[in-house]
Amino acid sequence: MNGEIEINPRYSETDQMGVIYHANYFSYFEVARTNLFEELGYSYRKIEEEGIILPVIEVNCKYKKAIKFNEKIIVKAEISFIQRIKIGFNYTIYRKSDREVLATGFTNHGFVDKNLKPIRFKMFNEEFKQILNEIRTDLNEH
Amino acid sequence: MNGEIEINPRYSETDQMGVIYHANYFSYFEVARTNLFEELGYSYRKIEEEGIILPVIEVNCKYKKAIKFNEKIIVKAEISFIQRIKIGFNYTIYRKSDREVLATGFTNHGFVDKNLKPIRFKMFNEEFKQILNEIRTDLNEH
Amino acid sequence: MNGEIEINPRYSETDQMGVIYHANYFSYFEVARTNLFEELGYSYRKIEEEGIILPVIEVNCKYKKAIKFNEKIIVKAEISFIQRIKIGFNYTIYRKSDREVLATGFTNHGFVDKNLKPIRFKMFNEEFKQILNEIRTDLNEH
Amino acid sequence: MNGEIEINPRYSETDQMGVIYHANYFSYFEVARTNLFEELGYSYRKIEEEGIILPVIEVNCKYKKAIKFNEKIIVKAEISFIQRIKIGFNYTIYRKSDREVLATGFTNHGFVDKNLKPIRFKMFNEEFKQILNEIRTDLNEH
Repeated sequence: MNGEIEINPRYSETDQMGVIYHANYFSYFEVARTNLFEELGYSYRKIEEEGIILPVIEVNCKYKKAIKFNEKIIVKAEISFIQRIKIGFNYTIYRKSDREVLATGFTNHGFVDKNLKPIRFKMFNEEFKQILNEIRTDLNEH
Repeated sequence: MNGEIEINPRYSETDQMGVIYHANYFSYFEVARTNLFEELGYSYRKIEEEGIILPVIEVNCKYKKAIKFNEKIIVKAEISFIQRIKIGFNYTIYRKSDREVLATGFTNHGFVDKNLKPIRFKMFNEEFKQILNEIRTDLNEH
Repeated sequence: MNGEIEINPRYSETDQMGVIYHANYFSYFEVARTNLFEELGYSYRKIEEEGIILPVIEVNCKYKKAIKFNEKIIVKAEISFIQRIKIGFNYTIYRKSDREVLATGFTNHGFVDKNLKPIRFKMFNEEFKQILNEIRTDLNEH
Repeated sequence: MNGEIEINPRYSETDQMGVIYHANYFSYFEVARTNLFEELGYSYRKIEEEGIILPVIEVNCKYKKAIKFNEKIIVKAEISFIQRIKIGFNYTIYRKSDREVLATGFTNHGFVDKNLKPIRFKMFNEEFKQILNEIRTDLNEH
């Protein structure tokens, strides 16, 4: 359980500069985020079944080196913070062959119900709260 | 009312061959299909409000000349047939500058309700039926 | 070596009907096609290095059952025919859990050089020709 | 000349939450950026012909209200800064009907040549430099 997943960039994701189009990095982040929840034993589907949706509030990506078609990458997701009604994730994209960092980014999400009304984290089910608390890096750092 | 809409291909839609990636043509077809319904005075949203969904059953595209980024195109949609529980559309993509045909294709769709149960065309509301009947080319040709 | 690859559909690939958007199936086909060449020991990159490009001439997909987010699928690619200046692939998408067929399709491609001039198959390098000949199903069937 | 362009979000751009998928906002930003250059009389194609490429260095988006399928939006692009070898753009997405702000964002780009070597802004052709200088908001604000 390290929040990492391997992705093989697709031809459809390239642009005419001959590299992966920049907006597609956010799909990669999402794959890593989904994978992180799977690793935690708490899939996105299960979260949605609890009636919790995690709409995106803010995203960011810094591009260091271009990604080429069919150049395998590793995308790592971590929980950066959990607040009352918000959760944040950090991402790092590595080239698989030499672990060079190709990009970093973050996405922040609200906790809302199906009617888009905010839900407080402390109202979550205990199992999910415990899982999230164990891996959040804002607490771990202290 | 001719079922035509102008589209300006996007950088994000190119691939590393330097042309529009082939799967994106189906998004263009969808834009033209949506536009056709708008022109008919019967938007997709209105159809969905009637409880009708049009899932795709089969699609096809023939590529004649590549489309370049920022080379304006015209996409024309027509209703090719209406059957008991199915509807078909034909599409033509033209280069705007000289009306050269760049691609042709079709998409066929079922009529289903929210539970994905087929709905018969003759059960539709009269206004929508009349609109569709006026423009179907399978009848017009006779 | 069976031309099959597992794909985990992404959230970004869903649409508001709650299923994978139909045009994305062609990205899945492409992933399977790329994988097939890898399995053959002849990657897309190697083909491009030989100066051969395979632009799409025609594509088709028949949709049987919708694909849901995070429902693992298997996509199988096969070479359906090789002609003088054309190659065809057939695809089948299975649900991983029970091997139910969810969609089938094909893509046909030309053999062209960087200037988009057709190249005849018989002019290819011997190794590539032999590999392709071994797996084409149009010959195998006889 | 105001850097604004109208976009009609596509069905293909929705996700299963029933709204436009967040990564697609960067395609909208790119459409607005392309349009801005067109308005300036200096198309992307012309820039690329000068041998200048503008790879993305960093992007950001803040999401305020979800965008629905077929809900027309206005996307406004502005040049936020020009530095020695970098240029930045700010974006605002409005709902067309009432001009409510739905999202804001930025993208920063390097100036590089075909070999990805940085090019200094002061080396640009005079016409392009003058055009950019006229509309940069970092100077205008003083």
